[in-house]
Amino acid sequence: MSPKITVELLRQLRQAMKNSKHITEPLQAYIIPSGDAHQSEYIAPCDCRREFICGFNGSAGTAIVTEQHAAMWTDGRYFLQASQQMDNNWTLMKMGLKETPSQEDWLISILPENSKVGVDPWIIAADQWKTMAKALSSAGHSLVAVQENLIDAIWEDRPARPSTKLSALGLKYTGLSWQDKIVQLRGKMVERKVSWFVVTALDEIAWLFNLRGSDIEYNPVFFAYAIIGINGIWLFLEETRVMDPVLREHLELDGPSKPELKVQCLPYESVYKELQAICASLGPKEKVWISDKASCALTQAIPKIHRSPIPYTPLCLAKAVKNPTEIQGMKMAHIKDAVALCELFAWLEKEIPKGTVTEISAADKAEEFRSQQKDFVGLSFPTISSVGPNGSIIHYRPLPETNRNLSLTEVYLIDSGAQFLDGTTDVTRTVHFGTPSDYEKECFTYVLKGHIAVSAAVFPNGTKGHLLDSFARAALWDSGLDYLHGTGHGVGCFLNVHEGPCGISYKTFADEPLEAGMILSDEPGYYEDGSFGIRLENVVLVVPTKPKYNYRNRGSLTFEPLTLVPIQLKMINTENLTQKERDWLNDYHRKCRETIGAEMERQGRKEALDWLIRETQPIA
Amino acid sequence: MSPKITVELLRQLRQAMKNSKHITEPLQAYIIPSGDAHQSEYIAPCDCRREFICGFNGSAGTAIVTEQHAAMWTDGRYFLQASQQMDNNWTLMKMGLKETPSQEDWLISILPENSKVGVDPWIIAADQWKTMAKALSSAGHSLVAVQENLIDAIWEDRPARPSTKLSALGLKYTGLSWQDKIVQLRGKMVERKVSWFVVTALDEIAWLFNLRGSDIEYNPVFFAYAIIGINGIWLFLEETRVMDPVLREHLELDGPSKPELKVQCLPYESVYKELQAICASLGPKEKVWISDKASCALTQAIPKIHRSPIPYTPLCLAKAVKNPTEIQGMKMAHIKDAVALCELFAWLEKEIPKGTVTEISAADKAEEFRSQQKDFVGLSFPTISSVGPNGSIIHYRPLPETNRNLSLTEVYLIDSGAQFLDGTTDVTRTVHFGTPSDYEKECFTYVLKGHIAVSAAVFPNGTKGHLLDSFARAALWDSGLDYLHGTGHGVGCFLNVHEGPCGISYKTFADEPLEAGMILSDEPGYYEDGSFGIRLENVVLVVPTKPKYNYRNRGSLTFEPLTLVPIQLKMINTENLTQKERDWLNDYHRKCRETIGAEMERQGRKEALDWLIRETQPIA
Repeated sequence: MSPKITVELLRQLRQAMKNSKHITEPLQAYIIPSGDAHQSEYIAPCDCRREFICGFNGSAGTAIVTEQHAAMWTDGRYFLQASQQMDNNWTLMKMGLKETPSQEDWLISILPENSKVGVDPWIIAADQWKTMAKALSSAGHSLVAVQENLIDAIWEDRPARPSTKLSALGLKYTGLSWQDKIVQLRGKMVERKVSWFVVTALDEIAWLFNLRGSDIEYNPVFFAYAIIGINGIWLFLEETRVMDPVLREHLELDGPSKPELKVQCLPYESVYKELQAICASLGPKEKVWISDKASCALTQAIPKIHRSPIPYTPLCLAKAVKNPTEIQGMKMAHIKDAVALCELFAWLEKEIPKGTVTEISAADKAEEFRSQQKDFVGLSFPTISSVGPNGSIIHYRPLPETNRNLSLTEVYLIDSGAQFLDGTTDVTRTVHFGTPSDYEKECFTYVLKGHIAVSAAVFPNGTKGHLLDSFARAALWDSGLDYLHGTGHGVGCFLNVHEGPCGISYKTFADEPLEAGMILSDEPGYYEDGSFGIRLENVVLVVPTKPKYNYRNRGSLTFEPLTLVPIQLKMINTENLTQKERDWLNDYHRKCRETIGAEMERQGRKEALDWLIRETQPIA
Repeated sequence: MSPKITVELLRQLRQAMKNSKHITEPLQAYIIPSGDAHQSEYIAPCDCRREFICGFNGSAGTAIVTEQHAAMWTDGRYFLQASQQMDNNWTLMKMGLKETPSQEDWLISILPENSKVGVDPWIIAADQWKTMAKALSSAGHSLVAVQENLIDAIWEDRPARPSTKLSALGLKYTGLSWQDKIVQLRGKMVERKVSWFVVTALDEIAWLFNLRGSDIEYNPVFFAYAIIGINGIWLFLEETRVMDPVLREHLELDGPSKPELKVQCLPYESVYKELQAICASLGPKEKVWISDKASCALTQAIPKIHRSPIPYTPLCLAKAVKNPTEIQGMKMAHIKDAVALCELFAWLEKEIPKGTVTEISAADKAEEFRSQQKDFVGLSFPTISSVGPNGSIIHYRPLPETNRNLSLTEVYLIDSGAQFLDGTTDVTRTVHFGTPSDYEKECFTYVLKGHIAVSAAVFPNGTKGHLLDSFARAALWDSGLDYLHGTGHGVGCFLNVHEGPCGISYKTFADEPLEAGMILSDEPGYYEDGSFGIRLENVVLVVPTKPKYNYRNRGSLTFEPLTLVPIQLKMINTENLTQKERDWLNDYHRKCRETIGAEMERQGRKEALDWLIRETQPIA
């Protein structure tokens, strides 16, 4: 991986920062956040402005360019990758380390007096704007909303915004019509005395209307906004996108059953104007909900007295708790996914000794096997297929220049997942095709203990996910090891593979309590720089459980693994497992064999079935 | 415990809320926080305004009185106690339960339009004022600073503010002179470009000046404020309190060695005026530090452009990390304390069968044994001495009307501690003098497992205490049980028994990372309403440890118990302990026997030594 050469681009950007064609006053600094106007995690090529300017293409990072400096902040997952992708015009700011200044502190330490710091108000979230503006103004500087994006101004061959074909999802997959979802949402709005709700997150819009698109790679969403009132529904997307009669019927565009369910389609770009018009007509006490992560531009379109920013929207919360149809779909998707992954491992065992399998070809093969499964749509994120030292780059993606051969001497880590019409998958397995070293086994065993500690945890209703994070680390900590990422994220149902508001991480305190029906990942790891990476990830469903007692009738929860792919026994020091851990592992492998085995038989996948049976032998 | 009758008091307060003698405009509600002007946890009798108006005397709680309603918010430790101490004019608001409204939401739901809500700005913290003012104003009401305290206005026999004798602590106890502490503090101020620091917390002032008093029961502090500048030191307390030549020499009041260490003593009440004068003379960029938990009144005396509110002051942080002298003192204090507590248990064993020992007489006996130890000053908090059902009241304090006899049939819980000149102690043991039931043993064993899980935890440098909280609960959660309080608090050195900024609790995210030298409690519990209470508390020291590996050279920490009092084996299902837990217990008991046994021999306390040796036999 060679770094992007950015001398010329930085020169052009610094010129644009002083050019009155773009700005009213010269800027001493310009902030380039990584998001799009919807604060999406994965973004369309036209929105990859931070990557364009600095070369780093990870999912999280903010670049800031001043007259003299250029710096980029990212978190522990990406330290190595960012240092390889950026040239020496850039300073890598390692977030989470004590010595790393915040963006605000850094700006304040280097800016001349009374500086102007510019940012595109459509791609900075309102809460980030607020924090940054406050810090800068307290130091005598000011944050300036620059209407024209300065990266776009210097980006000659910037791609167009995608506008892919939309499709409607029936009740068979969603379990609830969009009309019922609107009714439930309005119930929440009435309860909290809110007149309007501006929906800005793309997955919330897709979930609400039971529509899917492919505007953004891996995430089956489409560019749109929605505004939901107690009596009206506005959907902001090009009407050309809903010309298909099936879609028109799905949305009841040509005459709905009830007037309050009439969907008005308006152009994507008109959301600002329409929101302003709605706000102009509000009574003095009327409130408008908007996510506090929505763009600064759209948030400020709502006058302060009407604005009610919320950390998690009711759609985000409703979407996180899967209904029985969605849970059934997720289970089916994970069964199909496990068949494909077992096939991959059986195939790799045969092929690796020939010496021709690479990280890229293994990833391609995984996709090929997945694509043979029913209702396959695509991958849910770029496959991390990594051998030996590449495995220590937490969000590694194999490229021709980094591509290593799979071998009998190095650890192989594959983190991959798919979108099926009935659900989204995300699974990581770490395996060795020869004989792992004692140290590799030792580390793997700690990671497995952490994985089991979370997966088997019993906890009271109302517990937040961050309270479980340390369970995943205890075995590693005991030996002085750790990993610099969270332990779990919410997973959408044929939607984004990362979704809020629940998660398992030491980094947040604002997560919502876990509830039965939520679906998360459980993925502790260990990374030895320059040597190997280990991660063990299942997607798990939050389920009620009944331990011996029921303190204050609160009820208890635990997790049920949806991912059913064997965990390689060869990597485990089984003598270091407790009896409880051994029982968990044997029980898990029994389920893998029964459930995935039955599906393999149905599909006639004999070789994979043999592999599965061999890999799921109980340990003593 | 019979509730306080509050009909007449509420009538008088509601009258005062409309009386132009006290207020400029009638108030529709009046907030009575539990704190004093220093946001102390324990308060002097003159500051017990919330107890005066509602009867509830726990350490945490806020009362709000409106024209029609009276409500009091407190947390899980106090639900039972508050319900017993308040009459039915009061609604108990159980904080932490989902159905309980916040104070703001409750006020907004019941107030008539455009209401005025009053509060004394000296006893509400600036951050609480801000939250409350914002919420009320967004609903069309306003929060009003009422200069005259309305409780004081109706409290006829309100006690005077105490002014006890001060004493100076020498280097033998403090390890660092106040002059050196000032120099270190100024170093932090220069580093952060801060010109002034307003010290409002009483324990910070006592720690900084190496002075102790007894203005507040259990906390060896005195009413004072301090303002520290880069060149000046102002100490706000009656000069009559520092007339003693020893104190004058300690503070170098009659000519300091260096002019920048000249302490100006000014009257306690003049702090507001002097702070205003200092602020009037500030340059445009000068900053003043003040705790964000300081009173609203004093905070607002600093103009916003100069004000720099901080969650944890540098003194709070410096005080939390004990120096070697303080650590040695805390160890000594805990040895003496353990001798006294072992004597108590040996005595109880003999006396209980006679049927005359009560919760109160046992608590008195504990104090008597402690007072025989060298440098004993007093108790560090009211002793919780509770038998059977009383044990389920988490912060129970025996009163003549609740006093139960200790017996051979009920669980006994004693949570007690002392102030010695060399350190502060806090220990809880739960014991049975007859035969505990299987269920009592089962619950005790879960609590013990939680206690050990925290005490033996190994974790990386930089870990915050809240990340360890779930370790204490895992065994209870596994069986559907839990406890509704945090797991640990910081402990001062001959200072407040509860201190920040570190702790172990699911409730906070803003705690500072644990550091070697910090001292905390580790005290999980289980409470069965109406039946029994179990808590197992040691004070523990954060110490560096060297596990097998050292990931990224971060270093690791663990805890060393300072409390060395046997844990009753009779209460433990030893077969349910893991080998690691058994080893921990045997190792702990060996330390108790060696260290406390040696001190008992030195003191010639034969009976207690026999008891200690019997109670510290290793388990198989």
